[in-house]
Amino acid sequence: MSEVMNLAVRARRAAGRLGVTSSAERDGALMAMAAGVRERSGEILDANARDMKAARAGGTPPSLLDRLALDPKRLEAIAQALEALASLPDPIGEIVEGHTLPNGIRLSKVRVPLGVVAIIYEARPNVTADAAGLCLKTGNAVIMRGGSLAAESNMALTRVLAAAAEAAGMPGGCIQSVESTNREAAEELMGLHGHIDVLIPRGGVGLIRSVVENAKVPVIETGVGNCHVYLHEGADLEMARQIVVNAKCQRPGVCNAVESLLVDAAVYEQILPPILGELEANGVVIVGDERVASLGAVQSVEPATEEDWATEYLDLKISVKVVAGLDEAIEHINTYGSKHSEAIVTADYAAAQRFVGEVDAAAVYVNASTRFTDGGEFGLGAEIGISTQKLHARGPMGLSALTSSKFILMGNGQIRE
Amino acid sequence: MSEVMNLAVRARRAAGRLGVTSSAERDGALMAMAAGVRERSGEILDANARDMKAARAGGTPPSLLDRLALDPKRLEAIAQALEALASLPDPIGEIVEGHTLPNGIRLSKVRVPLGVVAIIYEARPNVTADAAGLCLKTGNAVIMRGGSLAAESNMALTRVLAAAAEAAGMPGGCIQSVESTNREAAEELMGLHGHIDVLIPRGGVGLIRSVVENAKVPVIETGVGNCHVYLHEGADLEMARQIVVNAKCQRPGVCNAVESLLVDAAVYEQILPPILGELEANGVVIVGDERVASLGAVQSVEPATEEDWATEYLDLKISVKVVAGLDEAIEHINTYGSKHSEAIVTADYAAAQRFVGEVDAAAVYVNASTRFTDGGEFGLGAEIGISTQKLHARGPMGLSALTSSKFILMGNGQIRE
Repeated sequence: MSEVMNLAVRARRAAGRLGVTSSAERDGALMAMAAGVRERSGEILDANARDMKAARAGGTPPSLLDRLALDPKRLEAIAQALEALASLPDPIGEIVEGHTLPNGIRLSKVRVPLGVVAIIYEARPNVTADAAGLCLKTGNAVIMRGGSLAAESNMALTRVLAAAAEAAGMPGGCIQSVESTNREAAEELMGLHGHIDVLIPRGGVGLIRSVVENAKVPVIETGVGNCHVYLHEGADLEMARQIVVNAKCQRPGVCNAVESLLVDAAVYEQILPPILGELEANGVVIVGDERVASLGAVQSVEPATEEDWATEYLDLKISVKVVAGLDEAIEHINTYGSKHSEAIVTADYAAAQRFVGEVDAAAVYVNASTRFTDGGEFGLGAEIGISTQKLHARGPMGLSALTSSKFILMGNGQIRE
Repeated sequence: MSEVMNLAVRARRAAGRLGVTSSAERDGALMAMAAGVRERSGEILDANARDMKAARAGGTPPSLLDRLALDPKRLEAIAQALEALASLPDPIGEIVEGHTLPNGIRLSKVRVPLGVVAIIYEARPNVTADAAGLCLKTGNAVIMRGGSLAAESNMALTRVLAAAAEAAGMPGGCIQSVESTNREAAEELMGLHGHIDVLIPRGGVGLIRSVVENAKVPVIETGVGNCHVYLHEGADLEMARQIVVNAKCQRPGVCNAVESLLVDAAVYEQILPPILGELEANGVVIVGDERVASLGAVQSVEPATEEDWATEYLDLKISVKVVAGLDEAIEHINTYGSKHSEAIVTADYAAAQRFVGEVDAAAVYVNASTRFTDGGEFGLGAEIGISTQKLHARGPMGLSALTSSKFILMGNGQIRE
């Protein structure tokens, strides 16, 4: 049996046993996992040091090195996140709906774990602890497959977390990582129909696309955010400036940052210069259409290409387009957006209503920054990712996104006529 | 542009416009579709007669011919089903949850259409009207791809339904069928990632497997039901007999019929003979393990093979196994079942509780026939299929299974600190 299939068989067995644990038992295991991370921090940091050494030798860029690095402070944050999970309410067992059928059968629809969750992700070791904690909280067995850069860190974290969970009474195989970081192991995982109940890819466009193309198991796509802010002719200039600058500059490398700015033709000459000026002052590279370029508001506006409208820069760069009005703005967003987070700035009631009704995205904003699309900000307590597909879960996914349901029917001999 | 891609582009455009129609408009269109089916029944019946003639010439078995055939009575039932849909509450626009964030943004999570729904199904033309109606009700554009046997009937129904919907103000392209019945067209449909929001296969094991293997778009698997009834040692004999006979014989060709009977070793000698006798009297072929065969309760028990335990017969045939007790029954069901509908017959409280907790299936019954797993019986109003996967929807899928959600955030200038 291959490594991956072996993990899958163990995970399925663990899922059966996890499904009958109580909330209190699982929360106890989460606390034990947090303690395990603190107690065995040396082992985890040593593994991370080996990853960092290899990554530096391989010429890994500094931004990636920063995401890869662990230190005592980051480990403490990981432990505290596990403790925070333990204190959240348990979605498992919630009765979602129920009634008594005309024949007397008592029907209830109850939240249950999904079963076996697989996660494929890139080089951030904190995702390992995050995913393990979220899945354990919701009674799911998890199989993780992290990137090769963080291989040693991920295996060390998995060892520590699994040992702590098992010592606290959770079944063996509830938390596992795939050791092989080759392509074949990932593809095998994507093909395990019947063994894996959902596969969640977390990472860049390339990873997500590869999973969507190859997976035979159900997938939840996450994360790609080509987000827009649209400045309607009824926008307040000062509010528009603050929202655009915040959405672009506050943290440009994340999926809910804005990538494209649309402005009504009726107001662009007044409204754009101060905004572009402040973006430029913040180091933002601006590409735009002809009207934006001819404004002369900033030192340099490169011409935007068709590709620019569709690109998630994840960087201090923005594309800017002048549109005829609300219709063109909605059409542009629905054509080029990734259905993640979209905002209009306006003082016009009807425009706001049409925008939220007609823009097809997980989160649609009126007069606020797109940067709020986040499980924590939305009050979901925890987040396993941000779904950009429409099936099962859309937008920030809290604990309930890791659940399914089961109909339970209690009868006393009913048969169908 | 290929036929399928052309349909997909039209469907996406229609979906955008359908998303802003009101319930009253869509319900009016459903009434118009019902009227259309009645007014143009001659055209539909002529097309069906051509399908029937070709099917007979091709040696199609009688059971399939019966599923294919339309007559005025069946067309009237189709029209009435569309009218019944119009009278159901509209799930679109429902606010699923909502609250005001600490920063004052008013957040609501609202039910919206999925967008473009594709359905691949086999030779029952009533599915065409059903799917078109359910999708229109929920504001989704639909692309249908029926089997070649019903090709003329499906195209005629699609023409009539689409014309009626469009005359009632729905956008062109809201109801479409793929005319090509070749394999390539179906595979192209499965590959249209980004164009199709969900693909629902309805049909036999082969069709479902082919879709799961090939699809790059999100899929909801439906319908395969290898269902069990387990007679616990605490079962009432008379209740057990009624439930088993009902679950097997009342309509053996459907997915919620029972395919496998498990009986506790402690009671099988008393409880099985009268049940097997009545099954045999109803024409049921019995395969079983050695203990069942050696009972001599019926004229003939063929030995059950490993394959029998995993087979959905959809016919007057049942496999019977003696188990040591509850543990073995749950283990057997979780190993061989298709996670559809599973029943225990027992008078024992603890056994009932463990069975519903540990059996992994869409619907789990205590003391009732598995035949109730159905949208109508569950009180869902309408049914698009029965999901046997755990993502998005599980068990009978009502109108809400054809919806997604959107977060709407109303602010007044909030930016993220």
